Amino acid sequence: MRNKEMLLVPGPTPVVDEIYDALSSETMGHTDPRFAKIFKNSIELSKQMYNTDGEVFIIAGSGTLAMEMAIINTVAPGEKLLVVSHGYFGDRFIPLAKVFGIQVEALQAEWGQQISKELVEEKLAEGGFKAVTVTHVDTSTGVMANVEDLLPVVKKAGALFILDGVCASAALEEDMQKTYGHPDYKIDVVLTGSQKAIGVPPGLGIVAFGPKALAAREAMPSVMGYYTDIKNWLPVMNEPVKYFATPPVNMIYAFNKGMEMVMAEGLDTRYRRHLALGRAVRAGLKVYGMKPLAAEDVAAPTLSCIIYPEGLNDAEFRSKLASKGVVVAGALAALAGKAFRIGHMGNATEEMFIKALELVGRTLQEMGYEANIDAAVDEFKGIYHSA
Amino acid sequence: MRNKEMLLVPGPTPVVDEIYDALSSETMGHTDPRFAKIFKNSIELSKQMYNTDGEVFIIAGSGTLAMEMAIINTVAPGEKLLVVSHGYFGDRFIPLAKVFGIQVEALQAEWGQQISKELVEEKLAEGGFKAVTVTHVDTSTGVMANVEDLLPVVKKAGALFILDGVCASAALEEDMQKTYGHPDYKIDVVLTGSQKAIGVPPGLGIVAFGPKALAAREAMPSVMGYYTDIKNWLPVMNEPVKYFATPPVNMIYAFNKGMEMVMAEGLDTRYRRHLALGRAVRAGLKVYGMKPLAAEDVAAPTLSCIIYPEGLNDAEFRSKLASKGVVVAGALAALAGKAFRIGHMGNATEEMFIKALELVGRTLQEMGYEANIDAAVDEFKGIYHSA
Repeated sequence: MRNKEMLLVPGPTPVVDEIYDALSSETMGHTDPRFAKIFKNSIELSKQMYNTDGEVFIIAGSGTLAMEMAIINTVAPGEKLLVVSHGYFGDRFIPLAKVFGIQVEALQAEWGQQISKELVEEKLAEGGFKAVTVTHVDTSTGVMANVEDLLPVVKKAGALFILDGVCASAALEEDMQKTYGHPDYKIDVVLTGSQKAIGVPPGLGIVAFGPKALAAREAMPSVMGYYTDIKNWLPVMNEPVKYFATPPVNMIYAFNKGMEMVMAEGLDTRYRRHLALGRAVRAGLKVYGMKPLAAEDVAAPTLSCIIYPEGLNDAEFRSKLASKGVVVAGALAALAGKAFRIGHMGNATEEMFIKALELVGRTLQEMGYEANIDAAVDEFKGIYHSA
Repeated sequence: MRNKEMLLVPGPTPVVDEIYDALSSETMGHTDPRFAKIFKNSIELSKQMYNTDGEVFIIAGSGTLAMEMAIINTVAPGEKLLVVSHGYFGDRFIPLAKVFGIQVEALQAEWGQQISKELVEEKLAEGGFKAVTVTHVDTSTGVMANVEDLLPVVKKAGALFILDGVCASAALEEDMQKTYGHPDYKIDVVLTGSQKAIGVPPGLGIVAFGPKALAAREAMPSVMGYYTDIKNWLPVMNEPVKYFATPPVNMIYAFNKGMEMVMAEGLDTRYRRHLALGRAVRAGLKVYGMKPLAAEDVAAPTLSCIIYPEGLNDAEFRSKLASKGVVVAGALAALAGKAFRIGHMGNATEEMFIKALELVGRTLQEMGYEANIDAAVDEFKGIYHSA
């Protein structure tokens, strides 16, 4: 491992050597058949990950651009969108959609809580919603949405189900051909970024459109975007020697390698590993008197928002920890200063978290707090291996 | 040089080892102050390159996304835009702007020719144009626009001057504080991609807004884009520890290195080098009976579209040349099969073109054409060193 530090923020996640090597491979022309083959392979692997019979679009951008691509290609100006938000990133769909003249309504959970399906059902009963966005895991709160619960309610109301998989894809099941209680009840759109559970540096937005979402785009004569119009990209994604806008060649090399690693591990194994990792990291940190924001039944496998013991100084804690080589992120909005966020996804390993737990413990001790490092590590290992 | 081939397409251009190394440096968090410093430096260097007293925006995307960002932040739906086009990429502004309900009119040159300032003046006399796009160098034709001629005409008409620098920035002067015959006559917007004369892999769009273009954005309550709204990015570009959407960390490392190399060479030196390179490459190829599409007085320093000798098979020529390690691009639209495009920009060197001229000559010989390699190389060297 070439990395000198442990990047345990909720994305970007630790990049492994094979991915760095792919990233810095010789730049080819973007219509070179050898590059097209790699690009095509990365698209195919993404389709396999989402198990979609639709189309996947991989473009230079970010998760936010992928969100925009999901919205403008499915919801026209004037149409109604319901945003189901479990935090900062769920909320982001509100201004994003409003810019395009979409009528947005939102259900915003108290941070750390889930929106219930009853609330969604009640809201959708007002009628006329073209689509509903659900953030699979909100990067601000570490709350995971209950797709099993929400999807049937959304589909029953005739709306498209748009799943923001930014902190979920490649770590939680997002199977676009899975039916949720009715043959027609399926996820319509999933989107993500490269730098989360896929473990590639940031720089790509990835969006998968199922058949109904593709039909929604077809039904609109034009959309409010040129670079983000999936119709401009479709010929390229089907046949990557074609040209629309120059794809980010080296980032695609890296993404292809990242997806090869995802599929080589196997989706089920990878999902189970993330589930175990999330539980184990939270359990280990609890030994130190730290408290996850989200209750365990709604807590994400990919990242956790962890509330500090009373009085602990956020800036000092994170800076001391960083000086030991472990980088975690601050919390957002009202939680800033009171909590930190730790990512446990992508190609981060058990060994990293054992080391990270030790260093968190030592940091706490230096700051005058009690921390039973052996107990925390034992708790982590016990849960990780039994989960 | 780690590269095994000479990538002489009109972008992406040859990536040097220092840039590959920067690209694959350890991924840091996007709000890490150490990354923010690198990001900030790359923004400052870009501002120096464009000599702007406005703002520069560097985002994950492509030249096309940068074009979209330039348009939506300056021209509102319903307003009038004039497109001055010297080829395929100039034309691209037409559908791009139409998507947003902008009233587009276009002056399209015959391929290989320039649009005269008289034509532009006449068109602008119709009145009401909010902005004019001029493609500094059109990647399809290798025709360079005459900014000295066109800018005063555009500014006199009260329109914003939007310069598409995709195949020009870092190779041709684009000085946003330079005045063109009147203290108020300046370039308002310049945009480019990372993979052209800056010599970095594709994956970034770069847009510089001068004060009048920034004021145009301020005058609009909202714009038809979220990721592309410069107001969302402005706080980040001024202070890169701030967050809007995750920047492409490793691509920014590479871009920063690319810009350091641009500024270390010095803009004037770099501009003169490109001018000499363009002339010398075309002169060398002429020895082989090949004919540049654009007359020398309108031909670009960065790429050339070269018409084959009568009867020469395009696919065979490019494939034979590629097997010798020199990759050039096909021509577009009506010229497909009849011409090829060769990039001579970024960090491509004199030595590369001497070698490339030899290999083009050998390829021609193998295909039964006469080719005086020594004469072509001598012609190249003579022009390159006297220019």
